[in-house]
Amino acid sequence: MTPEDFRQAGHDLIDWIADYRSNLEQRPVRAQVDPGDIRRSFPTTAPETPQPPEQLLAELEHRVLPGLTLAQHPMHYGWFPANASLASVLGDIASSGLGTLGISWESCPALTEVEEVVCDWMRQLTGLSDSWEGCIQDTASTSCLTSLLLARERASDYAQNHGGLQATDKPLVVYTTAEAHSSVVKAALLAGFGSDNLRMVAMDPEKRSMQSESLAQMVAADIAAGCIPAAVIASVGSTGVTAFDPVAEIAEIAARHDIWLHVDAAMAGSAMLLPECRYLWEGVEAADSIAWNPHKWMGTILDCSLMYVRDVQHLVRVMSTNPSYLRSSVDDEVKQYRDWGIPLGRRFRALKLWYHLGIDGIESIRERLRRDLDNARWFAELVANAENWQVLATVELQTVCIRHQPPGLGGEALDRHTLAWVNAINQSGAAFMSPSILNERWMVRVSVGVEATTRAHIEKLWALIQQQVEESTF
Amino acid sequence: MTPEDFRQAGHDLIDWIADYRSNLEQRPVRAQVDPGDIRRSFPTTAPETPQPPEQLLAELEHRVLPGLTLAQHPMHYGWFPANASLASVLGDIASSGLGTLGISWESCPALTEVEEVVCDWMRQLTGLSDSWEGCIQDTASTSCLTSLLLARERASDYAQNHGGLQATDKPLVVYTTAEAHSSVVKAALLAGFGSDNLRMVAMDPEKRSMQSESLAQMVAADIAAGCIPAAVIASVGSTGVTAFDPVAEIAEIAARHDIWLHVDAAMAGSAMLLPECRYLWEGVEAADSIAWNPHKWMGTILDCSLMYVRDVQHLVRVMSTNPSYLRSSVDDEVKQYRDWGIPLGRRFRALKLWYHLGIDGIESIRERLRRDLDNARWFAELVANAENWQVLATVELQTVCIRHQPPGLGGEALDRHTLAWVNAINQSGAAFMSPSILNERWMVRVSVGVEATTRAHIEKLWALIQQQVEESTF
Repeated sequence: MTPEDFRQAGHDLIDWIADYRSNLEQRPVRAQVDPGDIRRSFPTTAPETPQPPEQLLAELEHRVLPGLTLAQHPMHYGWFPANASLASVLGDIASSGLGTLGISWESCPALTEVEEVVCDWMRQLTGLSDSWEGCIQDTASTSCLTSLLLARERASDYAQNHGGLQATDKPLVVYTTAEAHSSVVKAALLAGFGSDNLRMVAMDPEKRSMQSESLAQMVAADIAAGCIPAAVIASVGSTGVTAFDPVAEIAEIAARHDIWLHVDAAMAGSAMLLPECRYLWEGVEAADSIAWNPHKWMGTILDCSLMYVRDVQHLVRVMSTNPSYLRSSVDDEVKQYRDWGIPLGRRFRALKLWYHLGIDGIESIRERLRRDLDNARWFAELVANAENWQVLATVELQTVCIRHQPPGLGGEALDRHTLAWVNAINQSGAAFMSPSILNERWMVRVSVGVEATTRAHIEKLWALIQQQVEESTF
Repeated sequence: MTPEDFRQAGHDLIDWIADYRSNLEQRPVRAQVDPGDIRRSFPTTAPETPQPPEQLLAELEHRVLPGLTLAQHPMHYGWFPANASLASVLGDIASSGLGTLGISWESCPALTEVEEVVCDWMRQLTGLSDSWEGCIQDTASTSCLTSLLLARERASDYAQNHGGLQATDKPLVVYTTAEAHSSVVKAALLAGFGSDNLRMVAMDPEKRSMQSESLAQMVAADIAAGCIPAAVIASVGSTGVTAFDPVAEIAEIAARHDIWLHVDAAMAGSAMLLPECRYLWEGVEAADSIAWNPHKWMGTILDCSLMYVRDVQHLVRVMSTNPSYLRSSVDDEVKQYRDWGIPLGRRFRALKLWYHLGIDGIESIRERLRRDLDNARWFAELVANAENWQVLATVELQTVCIRHQPPGLGGEALDRHTLAWVNAINQSGAAFMSPSILNERWMVRVSVGVEATTRAHIEKLWALIQQQVEESTF
């Protein structure tokens, strides 16, 4: 494809994207397809002859579009807000257009240095001190795994350079809670600790936050039993009910026993752009690593997870590779982001954050976040004041956990009722919410925060829910 | 940013990208900046007020562009070809525009199913049997780490569900060669095996391919010593000299001892699109996992690494997470790619492969690969026939390893000479090649395969090299 062909097809594609984003609200939120529908709409072998870009665009419209669940739809209240703000989309397009190769500073100095710049801007915007240095990972899952590898190597005095985890004398132990994101357990298992060495610390039964006394007791018991406490993962805004572990208290225990503290603020990191929310991660300065995702509520297009560490030398010692074919004469003076994570090759992700901050501006982003907080509180009040409705967790940010509980309905019958009404709405395409289990019973998470979601959409959602519940209540 | 603002700014950006790609050849290949130049050109704090998109575009031109080393420049012969073909760029832009959220089938059925489709197309196009199922990872580094985790858990009977790697009775051992990519050692260390349990198998001194007899002996010795051989990584087209390990012979040994065989064909996988090259990975059907990067020579924009496995059930058992908030009623009927790798959230990467195959067409891709093979052989002959020049490794594909050796020059003086001429050319911006160490002496890798590189560019390179060598020879 020549640059001139690309120019023409690119303009068509931009128009198509602008139209698509303008007309989102007319489409169903959840893809109205069955498993296999999209796959079967494609030929089973690759096209043998070239197709004109117009044909690809037509296929994008007719084959792909029906298979999208629309994360930017104003009636999308599922999982977490994934706004893919158009300013950040533009930066992502710039990244694609530049086609850079990020494998060393020399392979693309700008890729490295703009990432340094925007990570530092984001550090300041979330109120972190300058003792932190950051990079962009794909997701909080990867940031968490990377942090646990750093914890593992610190606790084992760099066992990777000897017999590895298999030669450690005493078992290394990891602490978190049952409320932590599934990626925390996954990271601990992939890092090789083993589930026997993963401790689920007791939680406050209401807030579902980690009980620091329980952590202290578990750590003491493990030490007495000859284990080495290696890492604790604190959730700052859990996925389930937006629980906040007490970071300051946990940090104190971690410091006392030289335990690596990783703060997983994947979702709630966006709230730290608001000074009035920062009390929610008080004590974070004493952590060893922090990760949060601008690609969630803040609205930068996925994939964009910020990871910060304080001990860069340790990070690089664990993650570094330095083969001859990647060396250059300036290596001592530059940052090599390949030594900050698992992949060697990296996209120019900093551009989407730069564009997002540059075009939208931090103040308008903050305004929107505050609007979402208001909307969520307003919705929670509506629900709490309605007959037979419950708000199941404190609405700390923009997620509201709700359940409709008709008199006399409990146990599995209540679960069937909950899943019936939420699935009916989800499958209709009128709105989308995430059913989720809390204390062994299904509830519904309403995650407010799509850029296009206004107060009127919340009203519409509440009307829809009430109508559906009426219909499905026997 | 509204869709209409996006439309206007998007058109401007597309024009800018088309111009940028048209005029690449007029720019220096290697960025002409010093460490810190780009960083210092940015403000130290985030912009407080929004900037118009035109300003961002102007800054992209004046601040970012000088910091790019141009991987698509016809005189770029460094590392590996990273073509970012414009057809695939278009697909990548579509992915950005759709702003999809890939965390489960339900979150975007098309993202999952188009990935299934293109991975299967690519399987067929590289001559693999239908016993393989694939997915797209970011890089071969991540594919290799994932494969080693699969190996670790198979050899330890799912130790992750018990005491982890720290509770295994007998050390698990990993085998590769010193010629393997740096990411293989990194993956083995990150997976927790420890460097003591990483064996460097002897190589054919000429071809630098793994000696299977040496592997067999090492495996036998390890078993006798009470170790468990867990994984062997075979390089199919190494980064250094494009060495090919004998996959069939290795597979036989691996099968005999139930060792996981991962085939790392990151670079040479592209060659498997050519039936006449497939003898180079003969035996691959007996491997357990394969990874190769369309984002290398084939020319799909980074990041795009294909990983194939045969035992999907095992893969999912090791990598799966299934929290309640990600479940849906169709989970039994669909593929959940979150269980195929480390990150939970995934971009819609299949679009760039689909667009690449669709618009360029497989036949034109194959033609270009064959042209590059011809160009590389032609260049190698030029060098081999020139006085005081050596081609240091068989030119199996498109990488030519060369050294200028004036009479009487050896040892460190020869290294100084090699680095002097290659760095002079690289720093001039006229062409770019990768200095690399072979048998403890510096040589120069000339990696042919940029889409824009014609025979005339190779002639120009050779003239440039000869001139530079003359100037720097005392």
